[in-house]
Amino acid sequence: MLLEQIKNPNDIKNIEEKDYEALAEEIRQFLIQSISVTGGHLGSNLGAVELTMALHLSLNLPEDKIIWDVGHQSYTHKLLTGRREGFNTLRQYQGLSGFPKRKESNCDAFDTGHSSTSVSAGLGLAKARDIQGEDNTIVSVIGDGSLTGGMAYEALNNAAKLETNFIVVLNDNNMSISENVGGVSKYLNNIRTADSYLGLKKGIYDALLGTRHGDNMVSGIRRAKNSVKHLVIPGMFFEDMGLTYLGPVDGHDIKGLLRVFKEAKRVKGAVLVHVITQKGKGFAPAEKHPARFHGAEPFEIETGLPSKPRNKANYTDIFSTVMCKLGQRDEKVVAITAAMPDGTGLKRFRNMYPDRFFDVGIAEEHAVTFAAGLAAGGLKPIVAIYSSFLQRAYDQILHDVCIQNLPVVFAIDRAGIVGSDGETHQGIFDLSFLSSIPGMTVCAPKNKWELSDMLKFAVNLEAPIAIRYPRGEAYDGLKEYREPIEYGKAEWIYREQDIALFAVGSMVKTAEAVYTSLKERGYNVSLINSRFVKPIDKDAVKEAARNHSIIVTMEENVASGGFGEKVLQYMQEEGLSCDFIPVTIPDAYVEHGNVELLKKEIGLDSESIVQTIIKRMEQI
Amino acid sequence: MLLEQIKNPNDIKNIEEKDYEALAEEIRQFLIQSISVTGGHLGSNLGAVELTMALHLSLNLPEDKIIWDVGHQSYTHKLLTGRREGFNTLRQYQGLSGFPKRKESNCDAFDTGHSSTSVSAGLGLAKARDIQGEDNTIVSVIGDGSLTGGMAYEALNNAAKLETNFIVVLNDNNMSISENVGGVSKYLNNIRTADSYLGLKKGIYDALLGTRHGDNMVSGIRRAKNSVKHLVIPGMFFEDMGLTYLGPVDGHDIKGLLRVFKEAKRVKGAVLVHVITQKGKGFAPAEKHPARFHGAEPFEIETGLPSKPRNKANYTDIFSTVMCKLGQRDEKVVAITAAMPDGTGLKRFRNMYPDRFFDVGIAEEHAVTFAAGLAAGGLKPIVAIYSSFLQRAYDQILHDVCIQNLPVVFAIDRAGIVGSDGETHQGIFDLSFLSSIPGMTVCAPKNKWELSDMLKFAVNLEAPIAIRYPRGEAYDGLKEYREPIEYGKAEWIYREQDIALFAVGSMVKTAEAVYTSLKERGYNVSLINSRFVKPIDKDAVKEAARNHSIIVTMEENVASGGFGEKVLQYMQEEGLSCDFIPVTIPDAYVEHGNVELLKKEIGLDSESIVQTIIKRMEQI
Repeated sequence: MLLEQIKNPNDIKNIEEKDYEALAEEIRQFLIQSISVTGGHLGSNLGAVELTMALHLSLNLPEDKIIWDVGHQSYTHKLLTGRREGFNTLRQYQGLSGFPKRKESNCDAFDTGHSSTSVSAGLGLAKARDIQGEDNTIVSVIGDGSLTGGMAYEALNNAAKLETNFIVVLNDNNMSISENVGGVSKYLNNIRTADSYLGLKKGIYDALLGTRHGDNMVSGIRRAKNSVKHLVIPGMFFEDMGLTYLGPVDGHDIKGLLRVFKEAKRVKGAVLVHVITQKGKGFAPAEKHPARFHGAEPFEIETGLPSKPRNKANYTDIFSTVMCKLGQRDEKVVAITAAMPDGTGLKRFRNMYPDRFFDVGIAEEHAVTFAAGLAAGGLKPIVAIYSSFLQRAYDQILHDVCIQNLPVVFAIDRAGIVGSDGETHQGIFDLSFLSSIPGMTVCAPKNKWELSDMLKFAVNLEAPIAIRYPRGEAYDGLKEYREPIEYGKAEWIYREQDIALFAVGSMVKTAEAVYTSLKERGYNVSLINSRFVKPIDKDAVKEAARNHSIIVTMEENVASGGFGEKVLQYMQEEGLSCDFIPVTIPDAYVEHGNVELLKKEIGLDSESIVQTIIKRMEQI
Repeated sequence: MLLEQIKNPNDIKNIEEKDYEALAEEIRQFLIQSISVTGGHLGSNLGAVELTMALHLSLNLPEDKIIWDVGHQSYTHKLLTGRREGFNTLRQYQGLSGFPKRKESNCDAFDTGHSSTSVSAGLGLAKARDIQGEDNTIVSVIGDGSLTGGMAYEALNNAAKLETNFIVVLNDNNMSISENVGGVSKYLNNIRTADSYLGLKKGIYDALLGTRHGDNMVSGIRRAKNSVKHLVIPGMFFEDMGLTYLGPVDGHDIKGLLRVFKEAKRVKGAVLVHVITQKGKGFAPAEKHPARFHGAEPFEIETGLPSKPRNKANYTDIFSTVMCKLGQRDEKVVAITAAMPDGTGLKRFRNMYPDRFFDVGIAEEHAVTFAAGLAAGGLKPIVAIYSSFLQRAYDQILHDVCIQNLPVVFAIDRAGIVGSDGETHQGIFDLSFLSSIPGMTVCAPKNKWELSDMLKFAVNLEAPIAIRYPRGEAYDGLKEYREPIEYGKAEWIYREQDIALFAVGSMVKTAEAVYTSLKERGYNVSLINSRFVKPIDKDAVKEAARNHSIIVTMEENVASGGFGEKVLQYMQEEGLSCDFIPVTIPDAYVEHGNVELLKKEIGLDSESIVQTIIKRMEQI
């Protein structure tokens, strides 16, 4: 095997040119095989095999730097830098990360995870090189999807000014996670679909030369606008920004890529190399269903179907169903996603109510302020964004939604520990950043029925409200507890004495196990489903403090600014003297791995919580 | 006076066409007169007089909507919608806001304050109109400076896709607050400075027609690249994004503006009208020193000089001086601003070390990740951004700086109550959002010497650190207290018993007054300068709790996630039983007005704090 000869960075340079295609094929088969077992990002990696090989052939790592935007397409890069052995532990606890990590390899120049950061980071590395008088090559690889994110544009705008040698590779597969959207996407598509760049160019020159009169020519140009643009220079959009544009080139033609990278290294200043790739290339199911194979669970190679079909609905499914009902019931309900119609479950809403559905691209900031505009215009927008990506829109939530008290509903999926994507994707800050904002209401459902009830409650609140729920299977226990949602009110599930468990959202399920375990040990335990994190239910806290010797709060969120702090602060304010244990995520990034394992590691599993409580009870 | 005839929205339509220029002149004189007394944003408003008049003549308010990006250029809009009488209370407590406010007038369609939000909000209003079958005109007015902000691009990209009737007016004055920067700015400048759009176009057509051979033409076109672009269509950058481009037009020619707006209303889909204006137009000092008259203190009309010259240095001055020293001492020190070389005080650093200074435009997200790249490349970047604007970069701080533990120093000016700019600009969330982030260190200096000491400490920390300091005069008391900064350690200023005051940054000055007042009343008081908000000094808290009957924390920040919560949480964790008063900003937006008045209003002044403490002491 050729791949086995590659044990260290730059070993690829020992492969003969005639074997490039064979190596690419080996890498593809390795990735399909490996990801079919572990799960992981398949489509984007299959699309970037030749591109990565060409970069490694053109550069000298680790002196030269590659910054992978989003980072989940870096598997081939990991293979080519000596990490093949680690792939059986991919995205598993203490195993290989699914993203570039500086602590994993000195060939990983910058950690990525969220979209659209690579041009900024690469430009920083390039200027640091200049200032220190070094002479290496910096390449940021960014997808056309990531290009819908505003900060990529901020960075390109800045790159044009700084006049430093810097290569941006636009890996254009015409996809975000789902179909790519927006004006620039359409523009790229026009370049991409031109039969042949050179042929087109010649054709239009001829047409131009045939024209005799200026006036006619003006109208001719107007009519032929799209073509003329590409004539003059394809990629003029980027040239207008002050970048040199090279391309488009076939991203699966290694020799072509080597030629263009050679040229790019010669260009002074910032250069954008436009590379056309196909997501899922070489694996038919992934070519056909790119969204499904974006981040895949383990699958059968023959069929492409999941190895373990899901039996139970997850929270995304519930959200999806409820949204369709809400859409039917109320014509003012509109839905917004930032490039995730599949991931957020809004695809069905889109199919039923296309005029009331908006995919704005990977553009969380715009998504939120756009929703604020829709709300100011009299509608009831629901913005569905994953917890960790919503961090991008903190200012917009505060400044554009909440100051004006606009009725925007935030449906926050992937809140809490998300598992295999790791530290960049854990949704463990939302309770803090959201509840710091005046006028915001924050809540979390205990089970699938409560998610439904909360969404219905939220669309009629006429004020900003966030509902956060976790990744994965929706809890279907405690079905009999379904008191109507009342603003700011918690739900008492068991009302006893001694120990009061206040659990937020997903932690109600854990609290149920803690309850059972403590009961078996002879304790009396109350279990309160907090429902609202902001405002907290002061009456419930007061009652609990009076009738229990200890209050335990439980949340999948960091301590600072979280639910526990609010409860404690209120207890102190009211002089409620009751012992208190806040169960929270520690003040540290949580790495990738199985959710249950991670929770155990950070003390968020029921057994750890039971032990902590018993120990404290013995001290009282 | 013509202006006196305008008492209600649309009254401007009763003014005869021949009097437009006279009205514009009256408005200018009114603004200069009025702002010279109250202070306020002068330059941007003088530049937008005719543009605003033309919009009001072309539209029917409040049915039609104008969204003013940033919003500080909306004074003429306020004048034309019946708010002339309020201008003597501009930006004062309970007076007229310096920004559009929906609660102030139904002609203010959307609240603004931060940059680059107007296109998103306007697009939301436009789609809400479509969905509800209404038929009004929506106009977002955005400056070329605001166009460096990524979310504006996200919105333009989305506008192109949505195919709704929507007008974006690009108010191009070639300035951010200071000079505008970046590739797009240069591009706009090329359009702007072409002698005459039509003349140029014709010239290039002729040149083209004279060419005989394709190949020659190719190289000709390459050479003439910039001109050819403008030939084909000026504003092709925007056309490439899928918008219709109209312009450029003279923004001080009302009739020309009326013509172009008429045309814009006829265009289907999203249209961008490029209007060229001059910042400060009609007031020589403002034309000459646009940055100085961006947000002006009261001034003398004859000279343009401030009515009350400053005697004391403010924190920005101190930062400015220290940065130059740091730059001299260490060649790895680099500085980044998001379009505020003047406001942040980095102008002197820029002049001394131009190669190590970066103005990235109004692009806080890019600024932070760019700094992360510089740090990953081995430098010591200091990012200077105002507190409320840094909210934009929450995700980048968390995701790009802190996960990798990169040594980026955040110099956060305008932290705490900022006064006359009001609710959008108060810097009262930074302690919360920053200290929710693992790996971040957060501190605040008590006086001008400590700002200097902290900066020197920070650049050598080799980890992410934020230093926040307030707007205005730097405190120069407590000079004799200058123990070296030690990581995570507070500074005991007075060590007594009974009452322990833990004050954060600017609140040390207030605490000093509280101390004096309590001493006069016979109490024993300790005063601790917290220095660090994250991590808190646990030893100091422990000592205080043991030797005092009450701990009072004082911070210019909301309660949730703030300093007080951390102290309380630690006290609870350690079982320290001591009474506790957290003095914080209440969970509500703080409006505009004099800083001292506002602090009194929210209980953050020394007298209110003294009363609260005495009352509690009497209960103990």
